[in-house]
Amino acid sequence: MNLDKNWFSEINPQFGVAFSLQIKEKLHEEQTQYQKISIYDTTDFGKLMTIDDLFMVTDRDNFLYHEMMSHIALFTHPNPRHVVIIGGGDCGTLREVLRHPTVEQATQVEIDERVTRLSEHYFPSLCESNHDPRANLLFDDGIQWMADAPDQSIDVIIIDSTDPVGPAEGLFNLAFYRQCRRVLREDGILVQQTESPLLHLPLLQSVHQAMRAAEFKNTRTFQFPLCTYPSGWWTGTMAGNGDLTQFRVEAAQNKTFATQYYNTEIHQASFALPNFMQQAFS
Amino acid sequence: MNLDKNWFSEINPQFGVAFSLQIKEKLHEEQTQYQKISIYDTTDFGKLMTIDDLFMVTDRDNFLYHEMMSHIALFTHPNPRHVVIIGGGDCGTLREVLRHPTVEQATQVEIDERVTRLSEHYFPSLCESNHDPRANLLFDDGIQWMADAPDQSIDVIIIDSTDPVGPAEGLFNLAFYRQCRRVLREDGILVQQTESPLLHLPLLQSVHQAMRAAEFKNTRTFQFPLCTYPSGWWTGTMAGNGDLTQFRVEAAQNKTFATQYYNTEIHQASFALPNFMQQAFS
Repeated sequence: MNLDKNWFSEINPQFGVAFSLQIKEKLHEEQTQYQKISIYDTTDFGKLMTIDDLFMVTDRDNFLYHEMMSHIALFTHPNPRHVVIIGGGDCGTLREVLRHPTVEQATQVEIDERVTRLSEHYFPSLCESNHDPRANLLFDDGIQWMADAPDQSIDVIIIDSTDPVGPAEGLFNLAFYRQCRRVLREDGILVQQTESPLLHLPLLQSVHQAMRAAEFKNTRTFQFPLCTYPSGWWTGTMAGNGDLTQFRVEAAQNKTFATQYYNTEIHQASFALPNFMQQAFS
Repeated sequence: MNLDKNWFSEINPQFGVAFSLQIKEKLHEEQTQYQKISIYDTTDFGKLMTIDDLFMVTDRDNFLYHEMMSHIALFTHPNPRHVVIIGGGDCGTLREVLRHPTVEQATQVEIDERVTRLSEHYFPSLCESNHDPRANLLFDDGIQWMADAPDQSIDVIIIDSTDPVGPAEGLFNLAFYRQCRRVLREDGILVQQTESPLLHLPLLQSVHQAMRAAEFKNTRTFQFPLCTYPSGWWTGTMAGNGDLTQFRVEAAQNKTFATQYYNTEIHQASFALPNFMQQAFS
């Protein structure tokens, strides 16, 4: 058996790995001002969106990413009212954020409106909160948005971006973290998707260093499985000035919404890091 | 870019997924009495062994599997002296088991001697304990070995097998677990690799049911990342009559050997299960 035209492969020659899903058909493809977006129907993972031929989201495993990128930070913050998502155009993170009753406004700043419009069409369940009155969908450059945002106006910043190359490169550096630090309230929390522990350890190290250099007192990385991203193993990294080891356990235990992956044990457990990561961050 | 002859792909059409490693060259291939064994040199994952074109072991990520399949069970058992490994022909689990000073004898029962001979040649570091006087390498059918073993003679049984099809099928059922139960001492522990939570949830459910039916009082599944196995997310399941939630924390903290993944926090954390798994096992 060969990986013929019935398979879509994300190939990462720089790491020597590739992952493939079997597809029934390509449903859509377009070149936007920023990138190539493709939509496939797969045999076992539901719909698939790729950007520049990299896996972005599938029906089957996106719960791992969206739950972990939102609930960890939102249950760590004492009272998250104003949340901004940088990137996140598929709207899955927005939906999870808006499940929190404390949230008064969630602003999504996606650079490419077509990501969201295609998600609305092909991933309607991810977009089911787009018309929530608390949702604020902007199509703009996240770096510029952050530079223009008022001091101490946001409780949680979620950087839900593509890999740190191309449009997302400027979201992984000291200058951007300094802006985030300025825009966050004193007990504010920044959380960022920070790639694979197996493949991107130097990036993870540099993120910790840059977040500390931006005068966040504390940084903490958590890990979770993610089948369709390179190596199947992914991380998020939080930065803040409060104690990031504590979270609102009771609120998380009594949460009013269902999750497939996240729970209080998973929250705690996701911060247990392997020796090789502990050594890299020490 | 295509996945041409410079890539080796494990293709699982029944799950609609494939994973590929970029290779420099194929170093060896042979058909044994039981299976086809191939050895590749990869660009980024060191040496790779496949059996019937399925990933078995790579230099780069085998630590995840071997550490988790041995140290969880051995630090849970109060005093593991006699250990048997069913399968495990690459000898990586044997090496980890023999790092425990309590272990007096570790018997590896691999059906296909060629797996071990090729591992000695191509994965010498995995085999560095093969000449330990406590190591007992047998090349035999694990099911038959267990049927012939005396009652209550073993402390820890590690089922380090291929997928539950072909030669390994008989290692995932009630009849075999009954034999394991008979062969284990009263505080004995069985641990088995139990595939992917995302792809093999029905198998995991049936393993729990069969282990309980074999009169193990307690069963517990732990999870870990494993880049080169389908979905990148893997599990082990323990069965025993003692309290599997406790382990020798102090011994694990003061262990006399290095690990890359395993530590006491990881031990504890690996048993935190996502909601969808908790629901499947309840």
